[in-house]
Amino acid sequence: MSEIKVIVNMLNTNEEIAAENKKLFDDELIYVINLMSSPGSGKTSILEKLILKLKNQVNMAVIEGDIYTTKDAERIEAQGVPVVQINTAGACHLDGDMIREAALNFDLRVLDLIIIENVGNLVCPAEFEIGEDIKICVLSVPEGNDKPLKYPLMFEKSTALILNKTDLIKFTDFNKKEFYKDIKSINAGAKIFETSCTKDEGIDVLSKWILEEVKKKTNSFKF
Amino acid sequence: MSEIKVIVNMLNTNEEIAAENKKLFDDELIYVINLMSSPGSGKTSILEKLILKLKNQVNMAVIEGDIYTTKDAERIEAQGVPVVQINTAGACHLDGDMIREAALNFDLRVLDLIIIENVGNLVCPAEFEIGEDIKICVLSVPEGNDKPLKYPLMFEKSTALILNKTDLIKFTDFNKKEFYKDIKSINAGAKIFETSCTKDEGIDVLSKWILEEVKKKTNSFKF
Repeated sequence: MSEIKVIVNMLNTNEEIAAENKKLFDDELIYVINLMSSPGSGKTSILEKLILKLKNQVNMAVIEGDIYTTKDAERIEAQGVPVVQINTAGACHLDGDMIREAALNFDLRVLDLIIIENVGNLVCPAEFEIGEDIKICVLSVPEGNDKPLKYPLMFEKSTALILNKTDLIKFTDFNKKEFYKDIKSINAGAKIFETSCTKDEGIDVLSKWILEEVKKKTNSFKF
Repeated sequence: MSEIKVIVNMLNTNEEIAAENKKLFDDELIYVINLMSSPGSGKTSILEKLILKLKNQVNMAVIEGDIYTTKDAERIEAQGVPVVQINTAGACHLDGDMIREAALNFDLRVLDLIIIENVGNLVCPAEFEIGEDIKICVLSVPEGNDKPLKYPLMFEKSTALILNKTDLIKFTDFNKKEFYKDIKSINAGAKIFETSCTKDEGIDVLSKWILEEVKKKTNSFKF
């Protein structure tokens, strides 16, 4: 009796695709950051500042996630690093499949670092692995210090948190003590950076830390 | 041959439940507002200010959507209006089913106005009808004037838009001309209000407009 061949043709789950992405990035010794936040917290501005500090020290590329426009990708391209735009056409987060497709546009052999700017959304992106080494979450001062407890998942899952727009703290009722207390209660090990892109403050410390993390994975830069 | 009875047991779609909610609110002559924005745009602060202006003129209640905490509901309850909290336990938006369950906690016969504060998220809530008369979308100045084009759906579907935290405009690069131009291109008929909750500016005009809209539906207040 001949054996009947059964072809199981099912879509891989996002977790499987993310794991494949992770393996690809590990094989190529590329450190990958998933940068997440609400719309308007300053992800793109932080990225612009980081690129200035990092682009002469590591070979880096950026994946920009946006729902419709290419506004952010244009800002990144102006900084002189390779950038691929993902337009999610309405979807509220990036997933593993989108990242795989985007990453294959780069020459992965030469890259040390890929920063992925997720869709602006403090909820959904935290639920989807995309193959990253770490998640970084940005909160901006005007959003209020109550957000970590109200939207805990992203703050919980992030290795580092950036408190941005600190230049606005004196014009708002943001309570920094409460913020640090709440973060301690939901993610005690998180590394916290304070930045102001308009005042160019805190970016140095952040970029040095990222550089150290990249070095740990890639050993020596390919640059 | 006896007839076989087939029971079609399927979940109603969200659109059907939202339509049922709408019919219920119409029958009871209650005007319903779905208030949406990113986290930290100031929805709860605007609500607090609106309640002060409206609660002696209409019979109103509030439904608070949050992922986990009851922080916002506590703030609203302190203003002395009936409030029901929906905890979505991770979900990124409110749906028709949640609203139906929440609304049945009020004495609908006496109410003129229900304001629903959706989960803080500039993307997903705009995709789900909940039985409202109108959607109102809040954008705060520190989020940046580029957001309507980047996250168009909510701005497109809203009858009114609130530009909040206008007191911070001089500390940011927010371009009001661009903002108005972009809104005109995606939702020319939208009513636009500018507010600052910390300076108590613009709430009067907004509350008067809401009162007029409530009056159009309810004819005379039940109060």
